[in-house]
Amino acid sequence: MSPKPTIAAVDWGTTRMRVWLLDATGAVVDERRSDEGLLTAQHKGFAPVLDGHLASMGAPADLPAIVCGMAGARQGWIEAPYVEVPASLGDILGAAVPVPGAGRDVRIVPGLAQRKEGAPDVMRGEETQLAGVAAEVGSGSHLVCMPGTHCKWVGVDDGTVAGFGTWPTGEMFSVFAQHSILRHSLGEKPAPVAPDNAVFRDWCNEALSDGDIGARLFGIRAAGLLSGLGQADAAAALSGLLIGAEIASATRRFGKRETPVVLVGSGPLGALYAEALTLGGLAVRIADADKAVLSGLVAAARRNGMLAEG
Amino acid sequence: MSPKPTIAAVDWGTTRMRVWLLDATGAVVDERRSDEGLLTAQHKGFAPVLDGHLASMGAPADLPAIVCGMAGARQGWIEAPYVEVPASLGDILGAAVPVPGAGRDVRIVPGLAQRKEGAPDVMRGEETQLAGVAAEVGSGSHLVCMPGTHCKWVGVDDGTVAGFGTWPTGEMFSVFAQHSILRHSLGEKPAPVAPDNAVFRDWCNEALSDGDIGARLFGIRAAGLLSGLGQADAAAALSGLLIGAEIASATRRFGKRETPVVLVGSGPLGALYAEALTLGGLAVRIADADKAVLSGLVAAARRNGMLAEG
Repeated sequence: MSPKPTIAAVDWGTTRMRVWLLDATGAVVDERRSDEGLLTAQHKGFAPVLDGHLASMGAPADLPAIVCGMAGARQGWIEAPYVEVPASLGDILGAAVPVPGAGRDVRIVPGLAQRKEGAPDVMRGEETQLAGVAAEVGSGSHLVCMPGTHCKWVGVDDGTVAGFGTWPTGEMFSVFAQHSILRHSLGEKPAPVAPDNAVFRDWCNEALSDGDIGARLFGIRAAGLLSGLGQADAAAALSGLLIGAEIASATRRFGKRETPVVLVGSGPLGALYAEALTLGGLAVRIADADKAVLSGLVAAARRNGMLAEG
Repeated sequence: MSPKPTIAAVDWGTTRMRVWLLDATGAVVDERRSDEGLLTAQHKGFAPVLDGHLASMGAPADLPAIVCGMAGARQGWIEAPYVEVPASLGDILGAAVPVPGAGRDVRIVPGLAQRKEGAPDVMRGEETQLAGVAAEVGSGSHLVCMPGTHCKWVGVDDGTVAGFGTWPTGEMFSVFAQHSILRHSLGEKPAPVAPDNAVFRDWCNEALSDGDIGARLFGIRAAGLLSGLGQADAAAALSGLLIGAEIASATRRFGKRETPVVLVGSGPLGALYAEALTLGGLAVRIADADKAVLSGLVAAARRNGMLAEG
């Protein structure tokens, strides 16, 4: 039998949730993944979904829980109001909001808002992952890249979030691949792209030079008509174009740092970003995404007095 | 009763076709529009569709026809192979390809291909409109902007197409509005955007500064969450962002000319482009799109000896 847990840590996103049971030192004693994200919980109720998972993991009914992610959105469990940047990661984690009537002590980490003229932006969930990453990389000035559907880039200076931006690169890939004229070029099920694909590299290099997407998108279609670019290479071209343009754009906004870009993500997408960053002349340091969010949740539990300092 | 026609001129696109009957001087004696574009004609047959329209307009069964557009694509009536740029508009129009077995003298104007490294591109249909525009603006160096689903920019020097590019701005607007997270911001039926909308102008100005789409798309969603940007203004923001970025990108590629940008398009979309070009500090000359394609078809008929010189 597992040791008795002290707290549950929950990463509750739009379509998925992840639950860890932690002992008094913050070590994992049990974990599970589920598809009961925000969209499901809006129907079933957040408390019943969480209670169900914790009960089936054998956790006591009064076990406290620290939560991050979309559960704190306006359409979530309760709204955990955005903290405005610049803000220190310690203060952000410390601002977790208690959920009244949850039947147990539940607190939700707030998201971040940037109200700067010309660059309005929000994040929710990534701030906790970011806190884990920042603890790992330590003080100094860091540029953190968190790839995904809506890729976040964050400037972190000595544990303070200076500013951030969202590049919806994953979403652009999906909508162009499925709903634009490029669906004829990529085919019904776009092939996975390998980072050593020469077409990926070529299109990435081009886009790195000026960050221009609009001028090149239709070129993928034209290359199919004129030089027989195949479906797998068309997917590689689109991926290289969008990731290269994102890196050009983000480094233009944030400037380059003396420290390596901290890339939060392993797996195939992380490998594409690592290759693209390298093509862009940037040094890269990889941070594990799963480890980072758990480490951020543990830090949040400590900041809110739910777990003793480690 | 209408005067006896000498030739039919046909603009045959993907989803629409347009037919004019012309007299020996090239003047219009009758015209009609139809939804029997390429997609319909692929099923019904191109000859039956054209014969049907001409018969119901009272045209003789042996009336010759000059055709431009997607009817000349590989998946069209017959393939009219691309002419490679640089090429003179006269030579392009003169390369119209006869359709064997059409039952009448039918010739299809070829499209254009650009095989330049890093900028593969094609057009089909716009080359004829372009010839009409070029005849109107005369010699000299011109930058021509043809807005639409796939907006074409063309550098024309003394009647020669030097180079061109495609910016799929209309398509990007549609797929982001319908299939991305921005559908929540714009609502089910995005409102038409007026060129004097301050949000359109603001987002256009921002995008004109660097041509960056990826850094700003998610900002439309964030502005809704943070400052209550409404649905109509979200549509204006997306339109301003995409059109502004297109103009920044196209003028970066082609350089600015001493002559005004020739904007082919009246109507609401043309008005947005005219405003955006003006915001970008560019002088604008408007050319009528319908008039241009007809004028190009007349020139093509003359070049191919189907109509006497005017």
